[in-house]
Amino acid sequence: MTATSTKPKYEIKDLSLAATGRQRIEWAGREMPVLRQIRDRFAQEKPLAGIRLVACCHVTTETAHLAIALKAGGADAILIASNPLSTQDDVAASLVADHDIPVFAIKGEDNETYHRHVQIALDHRPNVIIDDGSDVVATLIQQRQHQIADIIGTTEETTTGIVRLKAMFRDGVLTFPAMNVNDADTKHFFDNRYGTGQSTLDGIIRATNLLLAGKTAVVAGYGWCGKGTALRARGMGANVIVTEIDPIRAIEAVMDGFRVMPMSEAAPEGDLFITVTGNKHVIRAEHFAAMKDGAIICNSGHFDIEIDLKSLGATATEVKQVRNFTQEYRMPNGKSVVVLGEGRLINLAAAEGHPSAVMDMSFANQALACEYLVKNKGSLEPGIHSIPTEVDREIARLKLQAMGINIDTLTAEQEEYINSWTAGT
Amino acid sequence: MTATSTKPKYEIKDLSLAATGRQRIEWAGREMPVLRQIRDRFAQEKPLAGIRLVACCHVTTETAHLAIALKAGGADAILIASNPLSTQDDVAASLVADHDIPVFAIKGEDNETYHRHVQIALDHRPNVIIDDGSDVVATLIQQRQHQIADIIGTTEETTTGIVRLKAMFRDGVLTFPAMNVNDADTKHFFDNRYGTGQSTLDGIIRATNLLLAGKTAVVAGYGWCGKGTALRARGMGANVIVTEIDPIRAIEAVMDGFRVMPMSEAAPEGDLFITVTGNKHVIRAEHFAAMKDGAIICNSGHFDIEIDLKSLGATATEVKQVRNFTQEYRMPNGKSVVVLGEGRLINLAAAEGHPSAVMDMSFANQALACEYLVKNKGSLEPGIHSIPTEVDREIARLKLQAMGINIDTLTAEQEEYINSWTAGT
Amino acid sequence: MTATSTKPKYEIKDLSLAATGRQRIEWAGREMPVLRQIRDRFAQEKPLAGIRLVACCHVTTETAHLAIALKAGGADAILIASNPLSTQDDVAASLVADHDIPVFAIKGEDNETYHRHVQIALDHRPNVIIDDGSDVVATLIQQRQHQIADIIGTTEETTTGIVRLKAMFRDGVLTFPAMNVNDADTKHFFDNRYGTGQSTLDGIIRATNLLLAGKTAVVAGYGWCGKGTALRARGMGANVIVTEIDPIRAIEAVMDGFRVMPMSEAAPEGDLFITVTGNKHVIRAEHFAAMKDGAIICNSGHFDIEIDLKSLGATATEVKQVRNFTQEYRMPNGKSVVVLGEGRLINLAAAEGHPSAVMDMSFANQALACEYLVKNKGSLEPGIHSIPTEVDREIARLKLQAMGINIDTLTAEQEEYINSWTAGT
Amino acid sequence: MTATSTKPKYEIKDLSLAATGRQRIEWAGREMPVLRQIRDRFAQEKPLAGIRLVACCHVTTETAHLAIALKAGGADAILIASNPLSTQDDVAASLVADHDIPVFAIKGEDNETYHRHVQIALDHRPNVIIDDGSDVVATLIQQRQHQIADIIGTTEETTTGIVRLKAMFRDGVLTFPAMNVNDADTKHFFDNRYGTGQSTLDGIIRATNLLLAGKTAVVAGYGWCGKGTALRARGMGANVIVTEIDPIRAIEAVMDGFRVMPMSEAAPEGDLFITVTGNKHVIRAEHFAAMKDGAIICNSGHFDIEIDLKSLGATATEVKQVRNFTQEYRMPNGKSVVVLGEGRLINLAAAEGHPSAVMDMSFANQALACEYLVKNKGSLEPGIHSIPTEVDREIARLKLQAMGINIDTLTAEQEEYINSWTAGT
Repeated sequence: MTATSTKPKYEIKDLSLAATGRQRIEWAGREMPVLRQIRDRFAQEKPLAGIRLVACCHVTTETAHLAIALKAGGADAILIASNPLSTQDDVAASLVADHDIPVFAIKGEDNETYHRHVQIALDHRPNVIIDDGSDVVATLIQQRQHQIADIIGTTEETTTGIVRLKAMFRDGVLTFPAMNVNDADTKHFFDNRYGTGQSTLDGIIRATNLLLAGKTAVVAGYGWCGKGTALRARGMGANVIVTEIDPIRAIEAVMDGFRVMPMSEAAPEGDLFITVTGNKHVIRAEHFAAMKDGAIICNSGHFDIEIDLKSLGATATEVKQVRNFTQEYRMPNGKSVVVLGEGRLINLAAAEGHPSAVMDMSFANQALACEYLVKNKGSLEPGIHSIPTEVDREIARLKLQAMGINIDTLTAEQEEYINSWTAGT
Repeated sequence: MTATSTKPKYEIKDLSLAATGRQRIEWAGREMPVLRQIRDRFAQEKPLAGIRLVACCHVTTETAHLAIALKAGGADAILIASNPLSTQDDVAASLVADHDIPVFAIKGEDNETYHRHVQIALDHRPNVIIDDGSDVVATLIQQRQHQIADIIGTTEETTTGIVRLKAMFRDGVLTFPAMNVNDADTKHFFDNRYGTGQSTLDGIIRATNLLLAGKTAVVAGYGWCGKGTALRARGMGANVIVTEIDPIRAIEAVMDGFRVMPMSEAAPEGDLFITVTGNKHVIRAEHFAAMKDGAIICNSGHFDIEIDLKSLGATATEVKQVRNFTQEYRMPNGKSVVVLGEGRLINLAAAEGHPSAVMDMSFANQALACEYLVKNKGSLEPGIHSIPTEVDREIARLKLQAMGINIDTLTAEQEEYINSWTAGT
Repeated sequence: MTATSTKPKYEIKDLSLAATGRQRIEWAGREMPVLRQIRDRFAQEKPLAGIRLVACCHVTTETAHLAIALKAGGADAILIASNPLSTQDDVAASLVADHDIPVFAIKGEDNETYHRHVQIALDHRPNVIIDDGSDVVATLIQQRQHQIADIIGTTEETTTGIVRLKAMFRDGVLTFPAMNVNDADTKHFFDNRYGTGQSTLDGIIRATNLLLAGKTAVVAGYGWCGKGTALRARGMGANVIVTEIDPIRAIEAVMDGFRVMPMSEAAPEGDLFITVTGNKHVIRAEHFAAMKDGAIICNSGHFDIEIDLKSLGATATEVKQVRNFTQEYRMPNGKSVVVLGEGRLINLAAAEGHPSAVMDMSFANQALACEYLVKNKGSLEPGIHSIPTEVDREIARLKLQAMGINIDTLTAEQEEYINSWTAGT
Repeated sequence: MTATSTKPKYEIKDLSLAATGRQRIEWAGREMPVLRQIRDRFAQEKPLAGIRLVACCHVTTETAHLAIALKAGGADAILIASNPLSTQDDVAASLVADHDIPVFAIKGEDNETYHRHVQIALDHRPNVIIDDGSDVVATLIQQRQHQIADIIGTTEETTTGIVRLKAMFRDGVLTFPAMNVNDADTKHFFDNRYGTGQSTLDGIIRATNLLLAGKTAVVAGYGWCGKGTALRARGMGANVIVTEIDPIRAIEAVMDGFRVMPMSEAAPEGDLFITVTGNKHVIRAEHFAAMKDGAIICNSGHFDIEIDLKSLGATATEVKQVRNFTQEYRMPNGKSVVVLGEGRLINLAAAEGHPSAVMDMSFANQALACEYLVKNKGSLEPGIHSIPTEVDREIARLKLQAMGINIDTLTAEQEEYINSWTAGT
């Protein structure tokens, strides 16, 4: 269902899915105690009062809690999808129906619709942009220079988005502050590693019902997401090969007990390939050609360009849907390769994205980064800023507390020792 | 054997151990291809010609290779022990006999001797100090202000030393550049994690012959050394509890599947306790009293103060040597606790320290940091400097090459993509 | 849709699902090379010609391949569900529509229907019964003594079924041969351990989207299924507690690094509970009462009686569906416990059961066990028989071959050595 | 020191080592609570009174406890080494000096001495033989048929010995009962797997100080010892390849995430090779020739024939001792291979053998197997007998109790359920 008036209030699949969405959002809330506490404080303090805010996110049950917290904080927020395949339509419906939050997101929307939603988002004339991959900010800079004056700042969720923001800053076009949410320890240690790790395998298993034990899994990229994916693949019994371009990460993978080799050598070895590099065409024609018959390929990096599906489609003699989210490309050499989720983030395409427990911390960082931008309006330099350490540690502290875990504190003697340099051997 | 003249050339245990030392140094060299390449270049380029250098290190087969490389580079280097228990006397002998490098280090030397050797080191009027825990630098600043003019800079190996240097800088007394070798990725990722991880367990097993499977091991501290220790203890079948004071590290340990709790709760649970915090009295009277009969305690942090042995000794009704490096303290409550290696670094006290393969990279950083200090003499600000990224990556590259491992390189298309911000969804 | 005539040919959900089922059956076939080879041989040799056969199995894509192979071998086979919740309706449809195999199985069928299907199965007057949990055999013995003369033998898939068969044999009522498929190495090593391990977590994650990292998971039972479940839960970052009644298994779990304790102690510790014991009321009123608010409970053992849901339902003040396959029981103490899949096998209720790659070997054993029974008709004693070792090894050999893995063979010298006892130290 | 009279009372290295031995034996006792309880009962009940007993074992601190328990039980026991390299001379000294138990064992004894000690053992005219690899029994059968009338039975510790006993039985020469201690769950699950696993790596690390992280380790054999070795090697960060001749074990290794291939393919891949097969010449000329320069080879199987050192020695151009227990063979192709511990059990040659905690259960089985033989004298058939299940479970129960671990017991309802077959779905 698409509700459009002259000025559409929302554009979602089907409002009647709200009940399911509400139920699932509630369920996710159990694992999000930190964001809940922030929402409660926001409701009292209204730190975002009067702020027009655009959130470009995967529209999931966890994002729902972020949106609700932002609204509780006084923001005039609208939500658009950061990925055509990742929207959970029932969640979108509940946000509109139960929380009166404008949402523009439909699972499986085409690229044209996706870009139109970005335009609708910019029409909202945001002061703050929560971005995920930096598409809204890039569009703003390329097409709406006149709105830049409205901007207090942006917050960025992903490694990919940060790489793009750094390029923008280098090119002199990023003229407002950007909070690097991704670099918060309570974000990338957990979300990128444990979140991507578990949910990537979840997506693969739901799409294929493949037994991982005994399979050779090739993980392209050994950043935080790649580390998590390799760790969990091994945890399920796979034999993991890592490919990398960075020698330090490569040797880290070696020392972690993985095999490391170029993709050209890994191609004929793998039963399953997972890209998590943030780069382009990591698996391409020359690799498809070298693979085993029936090799399975998917992506868990931000954009859908890590696998060169264009060239694969061009050479394939046949493309066949063999299961949900699972397409088989027959190649001229007679062998086939199987691509999952059309090369889009497999954990969001075929599963439910990152579990709530990690998004709790990631989105706590988002909410507090927005508050920080507003509170420091005018005093932050243009460019990329880290989440303050105190914020990071406070999020960890709240999380531990919610889990019922106590930790040690420094004794007075230890406090003194750690700050002194005179005591030695 | 102690060879002393008016101006002693060396002070070691026994020169006749040189043959064994030489053999063991040669063996270690097999796993140190990076440092070997640096040594070969140094021998040609002599970048340290005319430099008086003090290296305060654990006197092991790996350190021998560092010392030989420095000498090859033209340095007038002397070597002292950074820890009373960690010296390998045969290595010291070979360095003196075979390489004519002055060494002042005897395994088991008392604290008085240790401090005398620091004075001898400073008598050498060093331009560059390679330090391990920052004892030589701290002594220089406290007692030899007049020699500071000689100093080009220092390089520091350990987390503990860096904490002290930061305190010195905060107090305004660090007035020359210090290279933070510890923070190089090719150092702490490998040496602190995999090196400490394996060698700590090695030390414990040699001291006790304990089966780790089925034991509850309490690891105090979840920094890089703690991570490695916890990982390897689990790898040997132990059930691991982590204690921490930092909430981010604490939650990382939780997500890694370990139990996290304060030491007061862990004390009655543990069969084995390992401190790797860099702090003081992490295990103390209140904890000893709560432990199981026969609990085993050791330290793998830099200094021997992590376990409060003074208080333990004061309350014990009996102290008994039960194996090499293993002492049993009988407590007034009738139970006993067992302390390994007198609370000193167990991997160096009871085993051979970090394996050569990791020290290869750590000491490559040391050698290149010395070269960097000398090359940039006069142009580096006082304070703490990171190892340049290019150096770090180059070490990783050389290491991979020596291991026969190839990795991917960016295609032109990828290089362009990664530097652009305009392409998006 | 239920198709019933005077003598119904099948009873399934909806024949129009056949296309999807066919596609999914095809997909599963990729991972089932051993059963495919057996089917090809069966098609030529017709070893089951003239045999009336009942297969009581989980009606999944893998079972479809077994049924097709049996039919190819000449059997007059009908298929009924071994569990009310595990039927995949599209698979049932495809077996009827595409393969003309009578199927009586509807996902979510009530107990009355389930038992009626068992009666239909017995009306088929089987010579051979493939059983899964021994329900068909138990009913035959209790209600149709006059049909026992028809029986050549039975083959049993599960640990639970074997325990029941042993009790029947002890009670003198098992008067025909039963092939213990479960005890074949190529069955229980793989299916029970790696199959149950992966698919149990898959079911839990699909039902809850729970992050396993950092959770305390209590696994009740450390048989092959429990071992697999505990291993994979740890592989996903959970901290695992095992409960057992067998001291040998208990100590094995301890040595594997897990905590072991009685359920009464584990109850307040766990975030997630998984029963895999084959016994009854392993989690019961006293345990529910001691659990954390929001604790999640599920079962991966054969029958739905491992969790005492009757007592839970009786005391609950409210029962609420919170997600698919997920019900929350509010307890008088104000806390809630969450039960997945109504206490039925969670991997079949909320996911797709064991991956094809392991069922390939399990069902190869089933097919060959049927052939063995028929071939040895009249010459096998009543009671429980192992799968012959040669069969077991042959299955493993075919599987390795299909995976492209070569292994060593004994040299003549080694063959001689291994058979001799005279050579020693 | 060798004490020999006309009838030597013992033949050991040096009686003055007794104090060290006593101290180490005491230390081992801490981890051997089960054997201690058995010894206490034996001391009261004297079940071995009047029995002449030969124990052929690795002479370690744990064996000392077995010998002491046997003597406490009334046995007239003598102890000989089961391996020329595994004797701990201080332990031998303490057994003689402190416990008056005749010991014939010297670390490094030559084969001639080893065989002479076997003769001395047989001169003792044993009624019961505790054997380890079946050398004493094989010699008895080959050379002392007239003594077979004295024999009540034998107990065998190792997989290798059991294979030999089975061959003897097949050849009709085993005419008395043999207790298969190795097959007790409380023996092979723990000793072979966790004991061999940890101690093999311990031996390798002591011999080489090699960093295992990042190394490719080839484990030949995936029996219980191989499983433990592969598991622990992975636990230390190695990338493990398994070689096997048994397809079931091979596929189990694959599913456990290891690579499996023939030795000829593994040879050029490995940095480290460990044989644990029980067979002969598993690594031989063709493999040495294919290895990387500097590859390290060792054995943890029972006999020293798994590596074909004879052929290696014959082709080597030079053999050099490079560290203790470490010899480098220079090969005609210019590369070298490094052999540890002369191909003998590396955990006993370079380390201290299995940790006490596992030997506690293994030797509890030995002690109880001796008691069982004596108690059932005359009523046991010739051939190989399992340890009774009750004995096995009782050992596990005692061990858990000593570790302070409680487990569940069946409720009356469960007991009934498990013994019934009528309840079903």
